Amino acid sequence: MTRKEPADTPLGDAFHLYDTTLRDGAQREGISYSVADKLAVARLLDDLGVGFIEGGWPGALPKDTEFFARAASGELKLNHAALVAFGATRKAGAKAEQDQQVRALLDSQAPVITLVAKSDLRHIERALRVDVDEACEMVRDTVAFLVGEGRRVFLDAEHFFDGYAFSPDTALKVLDAGVNAGADVAVLCDTNGGQLPLGLAETVREVKERTGFRLGIHCQDDTSCAVANSVAAVQAGVTHVQCTANGYGERAGNADLFAVTGNLVTKLGLEVLPTGGAAELTRVSHALAEIANLAPYTHQAYVGASAFAHKAGLHASAIKVDPLLYNHIDPAFVGNDMRVLVTEMAGRASLELKGRELGVDLAGQPEALTSAVRKVKRLESEGWSFEAADASLELLLRREVDGPQSDVLDEPPFELESYRVVLDHRSDGEVVSEATVKVHVAGQRVIATAEGNGPVHALDAALREALSPHLSWLDSVELADYKVRILPGHPGTDAVTRVLVETSDGERGWTTVGVHGNIVEASWLALCDALVHKSLSEGPA
Amino acid sequence: MTRKEPADTPLGDAFHLYDTTLRDGAQREGISYSVADKLAVARLLDDLGVGFIEGGWPGALPKDTEFFARAASGELKLNHAALVAFGATRKAGAKAEQDQQVRALLDSQAPVITLVAKSDLRHIERALRVDVDEACEMVRDTVAFLVGEGRRVFLDAEHFFDGYAFSPDTALKVLDAGVNAGADVAVLCDTNGGQLPLGLAETVREVKERTGFRLGIHCQDDTSCAVANSVAAVQAGVTHVQCTANGYGERAGNADLFAVTGNLVTKLGLEVLPTGGAAELTRVSHALAEIANLAPYTHQAYVGASAFAHKAGLHASAIKVDPLLYNHIDPAFVGNDMRVLVTEMAGRASLELKGRELGVDLAGQPEALTSAVRKVKRLESEGWSFEAADASLELLLRREVDGPQSDVLDEPPFELESYRVVLDHRSDGEVVSEATVKVHVAGQRVIATAEGNGPVHALDAALREALSPHLSWLDSVELADYKVRILPGHPGTDAVTRVLVETSDGERGWTTVGVHGNIVEASWLALCDALVHKSLSEGPA
Repeated sequence: MTRKEPADTPLGDAFHLYDTTLRDGAQREGISYSVADKLAVARLLDDLGVGFIEGGWPGALPKDTEFFARAASGELKLNHAALVAFGATRKAGAKAEQDQQVRALLDSQAPVITLVAKSDLRHIERALRVDVDEACEMVRDTVAFLVGEGRRVFLDAEHFFDGYAFSPDTALKVLDAGVNAGADVAVLCDTNGGQLPLGLAETVREVKERTGFRLGIHCQDDTSCAVANSVAAVQAGVTHVQCTANGYGERAGNADLFAVTGNLVTKLGLEVLPTGGAAELTRVSHALAEIANLAPYTHQAYVGASAFAHKAGLHASAIKVDPLLYNHIDPAFVGNDMRVLVTEMAGRASLELKGRELGVDLAGQPEALTSAVRKVKRLESEGWSFEAADASLELLLRREVDGPQSDVLDEPPFELESYRVVLDHRSDGEVVSEATVKVHVAGQRVIATAEGNGPVHALDAALREALSPHLSWLDSVELADYKVRILPGHPGTDAVTRVLVETSDGERGWTTVGVHGNIVEASWLALCDALVHKSLSEGPA
Repeated sequence: MTRKEPADTPLGDAFHLYDTTLRDGAQREGISYSVADKLAVARLLDDLGVGFIEGGWPGALPKDTEFFARAASGELKLNHAALVAFGATRKAGAKAEQDQQVRALLDSQAPVITLVAKSDLRHIERALRVDVDEACEMVRDTVAFLVGEGRRVFLDAEHFFDGYAFSPDTALKVLDAGVNAGADVAVLCDTNGGQLPLGLAETVREVKERTGFRLGIHCQDDTSCAVANSVAAVQAGVTHVQCTANGYGERAGNADLFAVTGNLVTKLGLEVLPTGGAAELTRVSHALAEIANLAPYTHQAYVGASAFAHKAGLHASAIKVDPLLYNHIDPAFVGNDMRVLVTEMAGRASLELKGRELGVDLAGQPEALTSAVRKVKRLESEGWSFEAADASLELLLRREVDGPQSDVLDEPPFELESYRVVLDHRSDGEVVSEATVKVHVAGQRVIATAEGNGPVHALDAALREALSPHLSWLDSVELADYKVRILPGHPGTDAVTRVLVETSDGERGWTTVGVHGNIVEASWLALCDALVHKSLSEGPA
């Protein structure tokens, strides 16, 4: 992985769409990415076509160090984006080449490095406790060292706008130090998020005029203006915008990648994504929410399920005549939809497209397509979500299209008679789980019992116990990830549980979904789909 | 109720903070206000000190008609705000004084009326199906009639920005017709929400120059710029801003009253609320979310629970020295609080700060602090997370600091002997869950069994069955939310489950956490902490 520029985007390196979900986004209260999550996030962002993916702070956080190691080992293949490591300048009074934290940035093998530097005199004096000359020397030394080692370097000027207002000379000196030492972009950060767009645009214009540097922008959302500020900065001359998926970030969050991109593409006409990329915005936004284990925000601009949902009776009939009179853009352009129950998959066109992607040809089968659309809509109204569960969706589509002709779907590898799970918290404090399954496999009735560290683990173990003598491929298949989301009930109904199971056979992974009022049954449904999906390629028992 | 101007606000009628939660906010998918809800919303908005409260569309919606009738009958006493009815201009080819819808506006007895008028040529021709002259005559006739009847009238120019871009003359003619007939304010509406702040501000400046009218602004959030657009419009010369509580509204919503007000007061220095009113922003925002039956948005600017929450260990020690270096304003100014999130990266400084916030003084107790830090670090390495579970953290800290002196912590309200949960997926396909608990409470050993729609639900029901005869406060306590996160295990270990339980007693809510390899046991731990935390304020059984 040595790419330092965006690939296959119309604007190329002339415009940087830069994502920092994996570092600044992860600061959001409640987000805790595993390394596998981080790899999955990076793949989705690359699919979308962002130019730069900041993966974290190697050396400072063990998970981030591991992320870069696994990325470098070939686990992460990026088609569009360049991978970026984030870090700080060297310590005061030391040398960059001897600074452990700086060395960890090199060791990460990331081709691009974003260095954060304090540019507000008050922070330099009170938090860093050095003078301006030493602060600039820390920047110069670290940038020069990393550039000398073949890295591309961006400089994040922390607290830039507050700093520039308080002491413009100090703020500009820090930018000078970085750019003169070889940094490619000076990123102006509204770290405390207190800016408003008109003032911010004026400052950007002024700094651009005074320095001539290539400028970037990084906005926090504390005035609820992060998106507006980012777009205003582009209008004022920056060509590098840092965002996070769905605006995840510390405090009120960051500039939402999807709203910023929607605005740049549809309002300013800037082709910041690969051709056709905009239509992926809604899908990627929702998938990234799933990985963060957060509910997608229904009223999010451009990509929210309600973003083009009209309630007003006032407009209803006129909307039918001419929908574009009542929408600021065509929702399909960003992969969204105007209906009230908006989902990624619910439309015929998108389901057909998705089927093609999964190898299920629905184009010539209008009845199967109608039936599949109806089924997906019904399931989604019950809390199912297929956005992150391609394998379950593929099974659903195949059952519509070639169910009768398919041995595997006609005769699944096993059938459940019943299961029982018993959990005991005993008086000695020990907690034990035991599951018994009764299944029919290869013409036999099999009963098996196993223990586990929880109810789902015990159930999975009992099922494997029952099936493994009959399914040769089962031993290679294992649960790679398991996610649970409790969905709030409609008034008067009980909550339901949605389970996503990611399964792997060592070569590829696939994800299935199960929904039920009972978490164990929801898990069971997803586990079964996972095995049936595998048997599609292996054949029946 | 005859007031037509804001009362007791420093700017008086020179600036209009205008709320339309009860009309435009109610368009949000999922909101359905009763008349009692609407009265409660109006009272809270008046408490806060907004200048105008738009109550709805009398005549068009029966609930709104009733709202105005009850308001007029004395059920609603407003100290600051003037009450506004919303409606449309008369029908084409009729007379305003004979138009039923217009008469309903008079009948509402609202002293102020906001009339919506189409100002986009395409909407006039395609939706209204009249020519521009008749459209203007509809505005003129209706405004003149209502003003003649003693009402103050504002004109909402619908689709103004799109209309002005398409046919500026038409858009201006509509404004002219309204203002010349006696409308006080011409409100420029970004109805489709497609504007960006720099362009919008330019248009506002131009219209102001060309007309000299008093202008207002009404923004939808489809570009995620509604707050920014509203503030930019004020900077460009409007003196009347329409917002909704928490940005509720159709599609992506409207401009959030709380963020707009926060920005006007703290960034532009405009005293748009009564003195001291800003400190009510957080409380009123949360209360309005409750009435709308929506969870407060934790990451909302200014008023969100996370709006001043800092996670990064990097900053924690510096924050202690000078919090204003890391917050764009003092959170107390808007009635909010700074919170320090306790995470893997946290150390002594942030735990001490957090203790102070929770009312546990660790400053003078270095040994208790050391022990608490050690315990939090160990638990976090096992998968616990206290950043969203203040109640569990408070219990942990109290056990370190004053455990031996606390009756409740020394002698918890109940003790578990054992529990058993049985889940059956029967051969007829039905799934049932049953739990039995054996507990000691108030000196007795109690056994209770209950069913539930899942294992945790059954366990909670059995525990309540066992305890409710002995804990008088238990009936008021209920599970408000339940979240599950599966944490990937380190290689060679099993995954663990983290459960967050939010509990409420109708007055306040608190969150507890439980972690275990078994999801049911993790839930049990969080449930127990929730009850122990409640008993801290209630005393033992």
